[in-house]
Amino acid sequence: MKVAFQGELGAYSEMAARSYFHETVQVSPQPTFTDLFERVTSGSCTHGMVPIENTVMGSIHENYDHLLKNDLHIVGELKLRIMHNLIVNPGVRLEDIRHIYSHPAALAQCTKFTRSLTQAEAVVAYDTAGAVKNLKESGAKDAAAIASAQAAVDYDLEILKTGVENNHQNYTRFLIVTKTPVEPEDPAKISLVFAMKDVPGALFKSLSAFALRDINLLKIESRPLEGRPWEYAFYLDLEGHLGHEPCARAIEHLKEIATFVKILGAYPQGEAVEGTVRSKIASR
Amino acid sequence: MKVAFQGELGAYSEMAARSYFHETVQVSPQPTFTDLFERVTSGSCTHGMVPIENTVMGSIHENYDHLLKNDLHIVGELKLRIMHNLIVNPGVRLEDIRHIYSHPAALAQCTKFTRSLTQAEAVVAYDTAGAVKNLKESGAKDAAAIASAQAAVDYDLEILKTGVENNHQNYTRFLIVTKTPVEPEDPAKISLVFAMKDVPGALFKSLSAFALRDINLLKIESRPLEGRPWEYAFYLDLEGHLGHEPCARAIEHLKEIATFVKILGAYPQGEAVEGTVRSKIASR
Repeated sequence: MKVAFQGELGAYSEMAARSYFHETVQVSPQPTFTDLFERVTSGSCTHGMVPIENTVMGSIHENYDHLLKNDLHIVGELKLRIMHNLIVNPGVRLEDIRHIYSHPAALAQCTKFTRSLTQAEAVVAYDTAGAVKNLKESGAKDAAAIASAQAAVDYDLEILKTGVENNHQNYTRFLIVTKTPVEPEDPAKISLVFAMKDVPGALFKSLSAFALRDINLLKIESRPLEGRPWEYAFYLDLEGHLGHEPCARAIEHLKEIATFVKILGAYPQGEAVEGTVRSKIASR
Repeated sequence: MKVAFQGELGAYSEMAARSYFHETVQVSPQPTFTDLFERVTSGSCTHGMVPIENTVMGSIHENYDHLLKNDLHIVGELKLRIMHNLIVNPGVRLEDIRHIYSHPAALAQCTKFTRSLTQAEAVVAYDTAGAVKNLKESGAKDAAAIASAQAAVDYDLEILKTGVENNHQNYTRFLIVTKTPVEPEDPAKISLVFAMKDVPGALFKSLSAFALRDINLLKIESRPLEGRPWEYAFYLDLEGHLGHEPCARAIEHLKEIATFVKILGAYPQGEAVEGTVRSKIASR
């Protein structure tokens, strides 16, 4: 077992992988989501850990496109509590900080705190854990990074303040994807994508296939159809069992009226977790 | 009249503003979308030109959030054909190019062309027109930028190749927002945002308010509700006249079952245009 994730070691995606599997699972950091999907498709990794939405920032739309283009299967999900930390070189105090480095998304989630440090400016870095790595290498005494607790452990740096995010109701939902479908124990959730003929009321008709069978819709997301301006693919998350009659019939019903339907996976509803921080990797 | 847009002079948003109003309309470039919305809200600009979706890249989700938070009115829309150009200093040939600079979104839309130049690498810049500006200032003979025809005019540089985008069905839809509502001539389109109580079938019920009255849904977009994990606001674009009975009744119906409904605007359906390139501004 080897789990691909996007980002550097110490990224939130790594914490998600270790929470979902176990602390010592083998992981494979990838520079982009395209690489992540390629590693799982080629078989060089058995699983991929794919962030799909954050409760503050919204969906990670690029990954919806990857789910459509790649023939992988969603076999599980995990909701990771995102707790951002202000990380510094040992001895640095809050009043010493002039620059705060992090990924743009993390900076956007911590504006209340960063603006309260009036003498400090937020500076964009390519990665949260990468910002911590640079901080360690520079030894800067006037700078900080915003990243996971894991990143602080990895680089022996100090967490000066924890929970610096604007909104503590901050969760990222991850999908676990594999090449080979497995039958999860309680696959109570279904994800699928479809497109409709361009006729009035098309989306309403497609949702009625589920609503009229009392199948609950958990999420809807739309993405543009390539080369077809102002037409969309719709991604649905549904509550139900793929093998049970109402869901099976609803999907047959949808196929009657859609131009295509692709089942992305059937999997158990994910739990919310705080995230697993492993011990520092000796070789680093 | 003064139109705020995000980006540098020469940005696609400026071409959209000049296409929608007229070639010599006064414009006000803004560094961020937050600034754009602030300028219109404060009254220092009369209009804002807001890109809301691209047929290749999808929605500009940040601007949906701004529409909800700011009390502006959508009074029109425009669909601008996005034609990317390879721009160089005079005399530079295709085979001389080692670096191609542009905004990440423009680079992502031109991968087929940039990968065909095997000796060149794509390099991220903060802005399309900004990349052209830097190219002019450096005078580089081994580099190119990808940007609008306007940017080439502004910096007296050469367009070596036009239409370098992967997909020529590339349009960006812009919304024109104002502080003071006006009654457009044929407001055949309505945009609104709402949230539902968290009950099974909620989205289906809300769409039925329109579908059962034969009101056509043109687009749906969902965004997370702040502080309420896994709950969403839904943005709808509808075909219809706000003052006419079916639409008015449908919105009343929606209000019965929603936790909030906000009308974002009623405006004419936008036309697709090629974009207006103005002459070079003398003062630059």
